[in-house]
Amino acid sequence: MSAYARLAARFARIATLGEASAMLHWDASAIMPPGGGGARGEQLAVLAGLRHELLTAPEVAGDLAEAGAEGRWESANLALMHRAHRRATALPTALVEATERANAACEKVWRNAKAQSDFAMVRPHLEEVVRLQRETAAALSAALGLSPYDALMDSYQPGIGAADVEPVFAAYEAFLAEALPQAEALQAGRGAPQPLAGPFPVAIQRELCRGLSARVGLDYSHARLDESLHPFCGGTPTDIRITTFYAEEEVGKALMGVLHETGHALYEAGLPAAWARQPVGEAAGMAAHESQSLIMEMQACRSDAFLTFLGGELHRAFGGDPAPYAPANLAKLWRRVSRGFIRVDADELTYPAHVILRFRLERAMIEGDLAVADLPGAWAESFTRLLGLAPPDDARGCLQDIHWHDGAFGYFPSYTLGAMAAAQLMGAARRALPDMDAALALGDMAPLLRWLRANVHAHGSRLGFQDLLRAATGKPLDPEDFMAHLRGRYLQ
Amino acid sequence: MSAYARLAARFARIATLGEASAMLHWDASAIMPPGGGGARGEQLAVLAGLRHELLTAPEVAGDLAEAGAEGRWESANLALMHRAHRRATALPTALVEATERANAACEKVWRNAKAQSDFAMVRPHLEEVVRLQRETAAALSAALGLSPYDALMDSYQPGIGAADVEPVFAAYEAFLAEALPQAEALQAGRGAPQPLAGPFPVAIQRELCRGLSARVGLDYSHARLDESLHPFCGGTPTDIRITTFYAEEEVGKALMGVLHETGHALYEAGLPAAWARQPVGEAAGMAAHESQSLIMEMQACRSDAFLTFLGGELHRAFGGDPAPYAPANLAKLWRRVSRGFIRVDADELTYPAHVILRFRLERAMIEGDLAVADLPGAWAESFTRLLGLAPPDDARGCLQDIHWHDGAFGYFPSYTLGAMAAAQLMGAARRALPDMDAALALGDMAPLLRWLRANVHAHGSRLGFQDLLRAATGKPLDPEDFMAHLRGRYLQ
Repeated sequence: MSAYARLAARFARIATLGEASAMLHWDASAIMPPGGGGARGEQLAVLAGLRHELLTAPEVAGDLAEAGAEGRWESANLALMHRAHRRATALPTALVEATERANAACEKVWRNAKAQSDFAMVRPHLEEVVRLQRETAAALSAALGLSPYDALMDSYQPGIGAADVEPVFAAYEAFLAEALPQAEALQAGRGAPQPLAGPFPVAIQRELCRGLSARVGLDYSHARLDESLHPFCGGTPTDIRITTFYAEEEVGKALMGVLHETGHALYEAGLPAAWARQPVGEAAGMAAHESQSLIMEMQACRSDAFLTFLGGELHRAFGGDPAPYAPANLAKLWRRVSRGFIRVDADELTYPAHVILRFRLERAMIEGDLAVADLPGAWAESFTRLLGLAPPDDARGCLQDIHWHDGAFGYFPSYTLGAMAAAQLMGAARRALPDMDAALALGDMAPLLRWLRANVHAHGSRLGFQDLLRAATGKPLDPEDFMAHLRGRYLQ
Repeated sequence: MSAYARLAARFARIATLGEASAMLHWDASAIMPPGGGGARGEQLAVLAGLRHELLTAPEVAGDLAEAGAEGRWESANLALMHRAHRRATALPTALVEATERANAACEKVWRNAKAQSDFAMVRPHLEEVVRLQRETAAALSAALGLSPYDALMDSYQPGIGAADVEPVFAAYEAFLAEALPQAEALQAGRGAPQPLAGPFPVAIQRELCRGLSARVGLDYSHARLDESLHPFCGGTPTDIRITTFYAEEEVGKALMGVLHETGHALYEAGLPAAWARQPVGEAAGMAAHESQSLIMEMQACRSDAFLTFLGGELHRAFGGDPAPYAPANLAKLWRRVSRGFIRVDADELTYPAHVILRFRLERAMIEGDLAVADLPGAWAESFTRLLGLAPPDDARGCLQDIHWHDGAFGYFPSYTLGAMAAAQLMGAARRALPDMDAALALGDMAPLLRWLRANVHAHGSRLGFQDLLRAATGKPLDPEDFMAHLRGRYLQ
């Protein structure tokens, strides 16, 4: 057996344990009885520990030094193995364990602090989390040859650093300053949307969501749709689990949520089966993943064309007055621009402002330029500058997201990089598929999905984020495509 | 860290991986989309391989040789560690892998062979399975100092061998020859039961089953009730997953099935938490487990007293004519004796005959006294002798059960040992709790459950099956208690 073959077998084993963890995570989030939490935490910790042991076993370094690869897939795979090994061996076990403990403790306190909008309550815990994140960033920085913040970002979106993000976000900030008031004025001039008349029985919503996700390409012989308070896409490429949350009085949120998660699911399902369980067969990072959920939800399913189809489906499902289901009214309802304090409720136009703020603040915290104690003030100032509103309290400010309080620093940019990549990919797909909107108006996602499979999914992580965009669209990430999309949708 | 402490940590890790496997097994059987099967098989195989590696790692033998234990719990735990290690190291990896492959191949062919009642189709596969089981039995026999068949039985019910089973089964065969015709004559004299009038809406059955299982003691903050074609109890002690199968036209099967699985679940929930994830904290084998499901279903829930309560609950749930819900009619319906070909549909009186037949035939196959080619003939002959009927085909004969075709030899006796132990334990509980039937008539299972927790569950596997019965009832397994129970229920 060659050194490469030994490594491939080892990484397959590690990935298979990762699949087991993914299923147990899904179960914990979607259906586990509450009393199962303690044991589940142990199960996940043991599985994570074994994956780490397999990745850092003494013989791995020798095999990596010895291994050669043939062809571009094997070469990319071997490079990703080197990267995984460097990352895993960079961190002392004591630091990993201290981080896990601090994250868990902070996350727990954060739930109460958020409910009571009491930043002081969580502050010492968050300080410890940040202290350990800075230690982690320093250790990774030395091992990977990246700046500390970039070394954290690299965990979520390999190969992308602050230098890629800064100019893009600066351009967007300038764009938004002009575009937002214009969009608001145009929207006000068009009058309020007519609300859809509920209630929307959950059983019908469930059938509708299942039917629509299947129609846009999700194969339910390899997937499930369940319910959870916080919708997500989990599982494994051949057994994908998406969730949503239904409310009787509103249908758009669950429906768009399912279409969003379906985009994630289709990416996983479309990854190259020949490289399953190898690093190169995985998705190309979180920004790439978000591009696939957003191209489905924001680009395709909220398009004028698809809303034409969707309105008919909704009216068929729920009956009543057909007028509110007209595509123009659905567009008013589901493409409404509204400045708000909460990121997860934000519209497509203002969402990046929420991300830009977080990117700047988390980077400052990691680089030692912002103390945790000063976070609420910095948040309020930054928010006011970007969106012209001052958060009334920390629950609607720096306490709203779980990320930092659970130790996730460097993740936030992925949301907006994904939104931008989605617009750029959709532009390329439209150029390649001139009849796409005619197909979308019939609810036919097949041409777009075929294009995504060939140009995004099938590459796995053989190409980094920028190279993936270059191959699919002819250029690296270009915020102009996203801004052009927003101009077309909100400024005309 | 002492050698014992190192072993305890290692066995906790092994058990935690076992919990992960248990959850993934449950998911695969209850809710997994069909396309997930391939990946799930890999996940379970990797987890099983890691458990085996942890158990057979070179340092374990040294720790076992060095370790000392204090007190009866630690001593029993250490003895069980020795046993697990001896079993795991007895089998060469090549044999384990060949067995897994042969079992999987045979099980797959068996599904078609059963559907077509074509024994010839599965015969070569079953021959290979039996050949490997005989090799396994020989290897375990040498390592454990047991006869080959006893070494296989020991996998399912430690410490119980053919010598324990033979006299018990012989006594039952003699009892049945007289009791069965008598019971049939008495039953015929009492007239047919009045059927319950369906349909029984599944949503109501689901609520009823959940409510009743909770009432008899299942804590749903640590459990779920789901649906699967083949009902079972899975999961882990703090996250128990039971399943059942609902049919609109019939309510008894799902209901009694849930109460049966609840018995298994209560045993798991009652295991000593202080010894969780240690060998001594596990259930005391499959016969002990079956005793807990059957004491719940057969002894308690089909008792005259509980049927009084249950009839009221059922009528409240489904309405209609109250007459069929009278306890005497429910007893006629749900304690009906009927000779049939299928084990899983058998009544309490004839069920042991199905098991006795299988015990004798599987033992003969393992000991080389019965060739697989001769199995259908031997089955027909044995069945005719025990129950006076000749199976019309192999689907209703030796092809009906999955066990042998999946490599499970030595398991079958557990069903009847469990039924007998259930009767013996119920006798002891009734002596200790003179008011138990009054409680059961009110649907109050708490006194019985308290007794079971103290006298069975809390022992984990500190005591072997016979010692557990001795401690709880004052004697080892005695088939007379079961026969007395049957006389009282069917011959009066």
